[in-house]
This record gives sequence, C-alpha cells and structure tokens, in this order.
Amino acid sequence: MTTQTDSSTPLVDRYINTWNETDAMKRAELIRTAFADEATYRDPLLAGDGQEGIDAMIRAVHERFPGHVFTRSGPVDRFANHLRFSWALATPAGETIVRGTDFATLDGDERFVKVTGFLD
Amino acid sequence: MTTQTDSSTPLVDRYINTWNETDAMKRAELIRTAFADEATYRDPLLAGDGQEGIDAMIRAVHERFPGHVFTRSGPVDRFANHLRFSWALATPAGETIVRGTDFATLDGDERFVKVTGFLD
Repeated sequence: MTTQTDSSTPLVDRYINTWNETDAMKRAELIRTAFADEATYRDPLLAGDGQEGIDAMIRAVHERFPGHVFTRSGPVDRFANHLRFSWALATPAGETIVRGTDFATLDGDERFVKVTGFLD
Repeated sequence: MTTQTDSSTPLVDRYINTWNETDAMKRAELIRTAFADEATYRDPLLAGDGQEGIDAMIRAVHERFPGHVFTRSGPVDRFANHLRFSWALATPAGETIVRGTDFATLDGDERFVKVTGFLD
C-alpha cells in the first residue's frame, strides 16, 4: 500500500486556504488553481457546482460566519487520486464550532474535481 | 441537517453481507441487489468495476482471507445519496486485522454505485 501524504498535504492546505480567502480576486484565483472547471462540492449543509458555484458557496459561508477560520486537522490520507482529510471551523476567538471530514477526488492536474464532506 | 442513519443501516448491512457471502450464487444475487450495474469500488488494495468485477474482487478476498468476516463498526452517516461507515475484518478466531471507512454514493434505486474505501 502506497501512501502519499507528504506530497498531497500542500494540495489540501491550498484547498483550505481557498475556504479562508475573503478577498474575492484572490479567492477566484485560488479556486481556478485548486478546483477543476467541473468541480462539485457536497456536504450536509452546502452545495456548489463549478468554479463559480464553489466561489458563491464559500462567499456565503463568510457572510454567515464572518472572521471564522478553517484549519486542516490531522494528516492527509491518499491513495491513487482519492483523498481524505479532516478539518475544523473556529470562531475568531479560536473556539471550534464544527468539525468535518472531506473525501475528494483529484483530476489529472491534481485539482479537486469532486468533494464530499461529512460532519464529525 | 437531516440524517437518515436508521433507514440506511439495512443497506449497509446488506453491502457488508455481500462481502461476507462465500456461496457464489447467493453472492451474485446480493451483488445484483446491492450494487448498480456500473458500480465501482476502490480502496488502497482492491479495485472492482461493474457487478462482475466486484464479484471477482470479493472472491479474491475470500481466497486470500478464508473464513474472515467483515462487520460494520459504528453507525451509518448519511446525507442525500452519500454514505459513510466504518468496518472491520476479523480472523476466524475473532481477531481484527484491518479497519477501514467506506464512502459511498447511491443511485436512485438505493444501490451502491461508487465506493471509495480508506484504511484506518
């Protein structure tokens, strides 16, 4: 069994940074780099389709949770083009209010093409 | 957020039963019930495509681990058509040798159409 945790961690950290980027221009650029054109995101609360749909979804999270920050929690688990990693969302005061685990498939350019999130 | 743990548990238990069924005829019937025609399974060690490919994959596991038994460990987490659940593989003596977590998508007939497994 091959694990590729080290090489995938920057990909996931860029993905997390995308969720945290409040500057619209910077976020659009991060999304183009991190997500495939046809990317989809689904979790129990959110949905986004395509780069623009994902951008709108993240913007809505910032409006709902201003100043909150996502962080990766724990290592990245990968085989082939499949990733698993956990995350936490904290208030500006640093209190974690949501934890989740995302499962993602990468395309041939190592961009996120399908993400399914579960809440922990 | 809607969780549908109760209604999905029988689906997952049928899926686990399919992995445990050593009778070829019974397993073929379980696979037709549990998996979509175009179903795919991927984990770090195994791959199967389509009902016949999944059948061959499970048969190979039985040859490699005779008398071993898969059990679901913990509840089933579901939203929309996305499932998450954990499992364990035990020797005939009852010793757990592998644990994993599967992420699955169901089709409109509540059959498994895409399964991605990670080892825990």
